[in-house]
Amino acid sequence: MTKQELFENIKRKKSFLCVGLDTDINKIPSFLLDEEDPIYAFNTAIIDATAKYCVAYKPNTAFYESQGVKGIVALHKTIEYIRLRYPDQFIILDAKRGDIGNTSEMYAMSAFEDLKASAITVAPYMGEDSVKPFIKYANKWVILLALTSNKGSYDFQLTEDKNGERLFEKVLKKSQKWATDEQLMYVVGATQGEMFADIRKYAPTHFLLVPGVGAQGGSLADVVKYGMNSQCGLLVNSSRAIIYADSSVDFAFAATAEAKKIQEEMATYLAKLG
Amino acid sequence: MTKQELFENIKRKKSFLCVGLDTDINKIPSFLLDEEDPIYAFNTAIIDATAKYCVAYKPNTAFYESQGVKGIVALHKTIEYIRLRYPDQFIILDAKRGDIGNTSEMYAMSAFEDLKASAITVAPYMGEDSVKPFIKYANKWVILLALTSNKGSYDFQLTEDKNGERLFEKVLKKSQKWATDEQLMYVVGATQGEMFADIRKYAPTHFLLVPGVGAQGGSLADVVKYGMNSQCGLLVNSSRAIIYADSSVDFAFAATAEAKKIQEEMATYLAKLG
Repeated sequence: MTKQELFENIKRKKSFLCVGLDTDINKIPSFLLDEEDPIYAFNTAIIDATAKYCVAYKPNTAFYESQGVKGIVALHKTIEYIRLRYPDQFIILDAKRGDIGNTSEMYAMSAFEDLKASAITVAPYMGEDSVKPFIKYANKWVILLALTSNKGSYDFQLTEDKNGERLFEKVLKKSQKWATDEQLMYVVGATQGEMFADIRKYAPTHFLLVPGVGAQGGSLADVVKYGMNSQCGLLVNSSRAIIYADSSVDFAFAATAEAKKIQEEMATYLAKLG
Repeated sequence: MTKQELFENIKRKKSFLCVGLDTDINKIPSFLLDEEDPIYAFNTAIIDATAKYCVAYKPNTAFYESQGVKGIVALHKTIEYIRLRYPDQFIILDAKRGDIGNTSEMYAMSAFEDLKASAITVAPYMGEDSVKPFIKYANKWVILLALTSNKGSYDFQLTEDKNGERLFEKVLKKSQKWATDEQLMYVVGATQGEMFADIRKYAPTHFLLVPGVGAQGGSLADVVKYGMNSQCGLLVNSSRAIIYADSSVDFAFAATAEAKKIQEEMATYLAKLG
């Protein structure tokens, strides 16, 4: 998917919501455990319930890997389901991968040839050759960790160098030599508030993937205030607040209601873009 | 496996060799492609051929993920084969994972409960809560990226802060507040040469996992000169130089010869430890 196509989807659906498919077998409604593939059954119900209100899905690989081979099968089937039923959805493999060049090539093959995701999240610690193999795929995206939503983001990401440049700023600057904003986005946690203004100094036109609204405590209004640009430039993720909105047989209805509520708030912000 | 047990294995086998199982379906001997599971067939042959000369195996998840579900099955079977046939081997899942706390818990479950590896490599960018879930497992290890073997290691890992402290040094220092040297090792690339002396200033007693000898150009003599401590403190990995030493029907014999050659060089260094 191109940047322009993504923006068109956002305008058409009046939403920049990404639904995080962090599907935990211990948190899904218990009656689904009788299904042959409970994770897939849960995911397809959630996807059908929310597709109208979001423009992206983001399965986090950790949740699938924790279930062994069965989990990986469920991940494959889930992504295929989205691709075939909802081809306008942007599919983010939240994997936070990264390794030396010839190894990152293998991760890129997994994400883009095998799983056929639209994008993958990548950790920047290993530098240029760990990131570039993902960019070789036309119309596929790298979403590089910049400033994450967790407490641990303070450990290294804010370290200032001799010139006062923080590590996340260095990541933003250097990575723009590796790819354009047509293939590169950044992860910026919703919990970072006013830091979005600093991010926008270095990445004014890039899309930002923003986790941390909802369960992690970030505010959508703040993210929009400091982070939105003229082409929206935001994909705001919500996982737990939507997919675990209810644990009864009504879980899918509850997910619809929660996604719709966020979408309606997003529509008001998008209206101001004109 | 405890640190002391690992050191005992090193002394008994006169080796601190780790064999990297970076098994690429396009590089294994072509006659193996007739096998039902070519990756597993290749791995078991390599393991049988090298187990006498090494103390650790390190499958890199990227190579298995690139083959989809079949690859993940081969990874599971490979680790189980090592565990059952060669229980004294230290098994490193080279995955370079790391995510927010509740998600890293899922990766830890995958590595230690499902795959039953001894250790996992972890990327430090997301900080403390991304690392700690792996340390909750008794006698299991985190191997944190410090100074990697690739060209991209220069992009961020050497960045100096206001006090002249480089990022990899900060990783070494901070992480020692999260775990002891009984559960924490570091990745330091063999290509880093004299930098090992700097690493040892901050991590004198830790084991270091050292990739980059062989195909990547690092020197074993240099690694030992600057990196060995009184309990060896090194696991030196070789992947391509051993597993792809020969592509004919003799590939396993060639792997034995290559592993034995490295082991014999290692024995001379260990002899000097006394």
